[in-house]
Amino acid sequence: MASKKNKLKVVALGGLNEIGKNITVFEYGQDILVVDSGIAFPTDDMLGIDLVIPDFTYLIQNKQRVRGIVLTHGHEDHIGSLPYLLREINAPIYATRLTLGLLEIKFKEHKLNNVITHCMKSGEVAKIGCFRVEFIAVTHSIADSVGLCIKAPNCTVVHTGDFKIDHTPVSGEHIDLRRFAELGREGVDLLLCDSTNVEVPGYTMSEKYVGVIFERIFDKYPDNRIMVATFSSNIHRIQQVINSAVRHYRKVAVVGRSMANTVKVAQELGYLTVPSKILIEPSQINNYEDKQITIITTGSQGEPMSALSRMSMSDHKQVGIKPGDVVVISASSIPGNERAVSKVVDELFKKGARVLHDGLEDVHVSGHAKREELKIMHALIQPKYFVPVHGEYRHLKMHKELAVEMGVPKENCFVLNIGEVLEISAAGAKMNGNVPSGKVFVDGLGVGDVGNIVLRDRKHLSQDGLIVVVVTYEGATRELKAGPDIISRGFVYVRESETLIEEAREIVKKTFYKWQEGRKGCDWGNIKNDIKDELRHYMWHKTKRSPMILPVIIEV
Amino acid sequence: MASKKNKLKVVALGGLNEIGKNITVFEYGQDILVVDSGIAFPTDDMLGIDLVIPDFTYLIQNKQRVRGIVLTHGHEDHIGSLPYLLREINAPIYATRLTLGLLEIKFKEHKLNNVITHCMKSGEVAKIGCFRVEFIAVTHSIADSVGLCIKAPNCTVVHTGDFKIDHTPVSGEHIDLRRFAELGREGVDLLLCDSTNVEVPGYTMSEKYVGVIFERIFDKYPDNRIMVATFSSNIHRIQQVINSAVRHYRKVAVVGRSMANTVKVAQELGYLTVPSKILIEPSQINNYEDKQITIITTGSQGEPMSALSRMSMSDHKQVGIKPGDVVVISASSIPGNERAVSKVVDELFKKGARVLHDGLEDVHVSGHAKREELKIMHALIQPKYFVPVHGEYRHLKMHKELAVEMGVPKENCFVLNIGEVLEISAAGAKMNGNVPSGKVFVDGLGVGDVGNIVLRDRKHLSQDGLIVVVVTYEGATRELKAGPDIISRGFVYVRESETLIEEAREIVKKTFYKWQEGRKGCDWGNIKNDIKDELRHYMWHKTKRSPMILPVIIEV
Repeated sequence: MASKKNKLKVVALGGLNEIGKNITVFEYGQDILVVDSGIAFPTDDMLGIDLVIPDFTYLIQNKQRVRGIVLTHGHEDHIGSLPYLLREINAPIYATRLTLGLLEIKFKEHKLNNVITHCMKSGEVAKIGCFRVEFIAVTHSIADSVGLCIKAPNCTVVHTGDFKIDHTPVSGEHIDLRRFAELGREGVDLLLCDSTNVEVPGYTMSEKYVGVIFERIFDKYPDNRIMVATFSSNIHRIQQVINSAVRHYRKVAVVGRSMANTVKVAQELGYLTVPSKILIEPSQINNYEDKQITIITTGSQGEPMSALSRMSMSDHKQVGIKPGDVVVISASSIPGNERAVSKVVDELFKKGARVLHDGLEDVHVSGHAKREELKIMHALIQPKYFVPVHGEYRHLKMHKELAVEMGVPKENCFVLNIGEVLEISAAGAKMNGNVPSGKVFVDGLGVGDVGNIVLRDRKHLSQDGLIVVVVTYEGATRELKAGPDIISRGFVYVRESETLIEEAREIVKKTFYKWQEGRKGCDWGNIKNDIKDELRHYMWHKTKRSPMILPVIIEV
Repeated sequence: MASKKNKLKVVALGGLNEIGKNITVFEYGQDILVVDSGIAFPTDDMLGIDLVIPDFTYLIQNKQRVRGIVLTHGHEDHIGSLPYLLREINAPIYATRLTLGLLEIKFKEHKLNNVITHCMKSGEVAKIGCFRVEFIAVTHSIADSVGLCIKAPNCTVVHTGDFKIDHTPVSGEHIDLRRFAELGREGVDLLLCDSTNVEVPGYTMSEKYVGVIFERIFDKYPDNRIMVATFSSNIHRIQQVINSAVRHYRKVAVVGRSMANTVKVAQELGYLTVPSKILIEPSQINNYEDKQITIITTGSQGEPMSALSRMSMSDHKQVGIKPGDVVVISASSIPGNERAVSKVVDELFKKGARVLHDGLEDVHVSGHAKREELKIMHALIQPKYFVPVHGEYRHLKMHKELAVEMGVPKENCFVLNIGEVLEISAAGAKMNGNVPSGKVFVDGLGVGDVGNIVLRDRKHLSQDGLIVVVVTYEGATRELKAGPDIISRGFVYVRESETLIEEAREIVKKTFYKWQEGRKGCDWGNIKNDIKDELRHYMWHKTKRSPMILPVIIEV
């Protein structure tokens, strides 16, 4: 290592303590390198929010110093916020071919025309500012995934990206365990490693195992239509469905916009091999017998607008579900989506379909390393310092324990929070302060214009609805000129609540008269608060509910 | 069977196609017998709703004919809506001792003083109208559970209630397999059977197995506080925690209102054996060393107001989490609760606790029969007709397939929808019409005053908030007297949206002037709709959001 002055700073702006929006910043001297730029999907309490992206403030403040953005693979939680980052910062992108192919679609949607991209292969090295970034092949649930070896002037970092150890991937490269071993032998100062499956003992099965199960399903239901729902990005899974279809003399229809997009890109780039005349348009499905049809579609998470969900509700323009259909949900439910998936499964059953899912058959394998695989990575790298990434807090904590078991000194393991700075120098590694960081909500076209107050209001409105009270009075005389008018939404059936509203009107009147008589200043705030308090009290007493109360006082 | 005129009607008013609110109606001649009366917990789309109860219309319409209500066990999804039913119908209750004990608390809360109850033991028979109802001991995750043999004048019905086959229950009776066998031998016309775990192969482990795991945990962490979260109704689970605590010379503190209630009732009735001086008050916890303490608490589903959740957020008055605490979540997550549980686990980890849950250790067993147990029940009963109950549609469908495998003719299996009438007579069994049925929402004090329109409004408000527009004009001249005033909530930060609101005001003004000039009738509906349309269009164009727009037109 170089002198004590030379420091590598490592900051995660996302990807810790939560699922999604992975982004890690490496900083040395005047140079900043960004790894990944993902989104998270909103949780239940983020009402009306479409996407969650990282707070880019720190990068924007230092935009002149950002030398490049490296992407490990093409999943949304690693590339989804890149268009938002590129609006603010013009830095070159380094990624593998498929990742860039998927990004092209995003760039078009966001009308980003001047992005500089570098297409990298595994084994290649990019010089980005003072950093030397080597791309190392890993296996994951999307093709063309890489881990990284980042050499800063003072130290060597290995970032695994998302990975599993799959010795028989469906196509493409094996995970380059030998390169990880070599780097370990040469000496790695810091390891950042995927923590998703640290709670799960053993090994993750090979993706090929799902193919075996698909074959069994195709053999078992020779006369039925077979429909497979999976993530559109899981090209190997899609390839295996296509392989089974071909072997069973079936055509394949791709249903769902994102699925059609990925299949197109993956085919063009050569990541998906489809014999000619196998693909048909969804509109052609009815020209074939059931036994000749395989459908690949989206909606494995029960997303209400997805193709599978709409088919299950007979709400899809081109494809319906019919008795005898075999539907394979080839994915596990992301936490929070279980009820939505369960609802879709039930609707499919009601239409007479047979549904094969994770709980019944081995129609899915994870893309993330389980405990024994993580131990292999630790055994190969044997880093001096360790930072677990990609997991909720408990995963990071358990991964730290695993690292200690594998020989990293406890004091050399750092469970970071978002925005915390880890500094590595000849003097050692230590936490040193924070940079601005957090969540930014995207709602429609707005980025960051919905915050906690707006969300709190939405929450309040969603629980008990609202009551609008309009009082109109003459400024000069303080005479009530109209109303009070009372309008409610999301509170109670109006039919049921006529007396309630009538009584509420009387209460507002009385409050107004008191204010009128008292003549205590002209402060509208006073009368508004009085009306709010009186009504809130009355409504709670009558209904045990607290609707939002919005008094509007008009002076004419 | 008697003549064709004599018919038994069976209707499920709940408990099918959804989780919870179990209730089944048996009707013969002028007599109606009700089995169970449960609640369901609201799903995510039921914004602001506290509880879901069955639609009792059919029973209210026939209240003179309801001879009695039989309860199979004391879980909320079987007894929770009884107080609401008893407000409308005064019928005697038949249940076992613990179930009645738990009901007493409810009756007090609901100020129901004159309920007639009959305390039944397994093996006993109640004559209820023309029905002869025999209580048969079963094992389940709450003590004192029973199945039923209901003899109508023309046929014999077995209703399993919720059950598993546990040959080594922690205490109390074994499941009376011999009685089920005898009844089967004598001939059962109709079987209604629990379908919850029909998707799961094999057998459910005995409750005692969890006790073995508890012992291991107490052995492994001799110096740490041990905290166990489970359902308050799972008295056997609580007993096993107490047993382990006693064996390890620890005191037990019960934290959480519902847990304290159940422990009190169960102790009083003799369902829970607690050596003297073992129980301490939560306030006394700090008088002891960590190794002397066990805490039993609620919150295994991540409920935000539960004791565990509040402890994890340092928001509990008496108990906090500290580093080294061992927290056992002894339950599986009910679908829909996964994210909430995950959040609590993460908070506990952040406080330095070690959390042992279902995914890591066998700290929970199910209370419901898995496939092989269901087969045993079918083998013993061998009914003529079969109705699967207690499950989502897919469970009912799969249970039907299992019944067919076990020898029930396919045409004799009936997968019912809520409210559908199954009729059994000498002529056979057939579906015959519907009775009123459905969900009724309880929100605060209101029962049924929140329906789909109110929920739709709450949903709308929760997604994009609202904009209130107030326009005041003089009736005679149609001059604008004040405003337009625009108020938004849950839409955007006001700070960010000044221009937006200013422009919106101009749009409303223009729309008003057009109406003023056009003088097209005095219809407020027109101008209101015009304002709505113009604003909606503008807001969508600017923000890609659709807030609820509430125009208020005041004539002075």
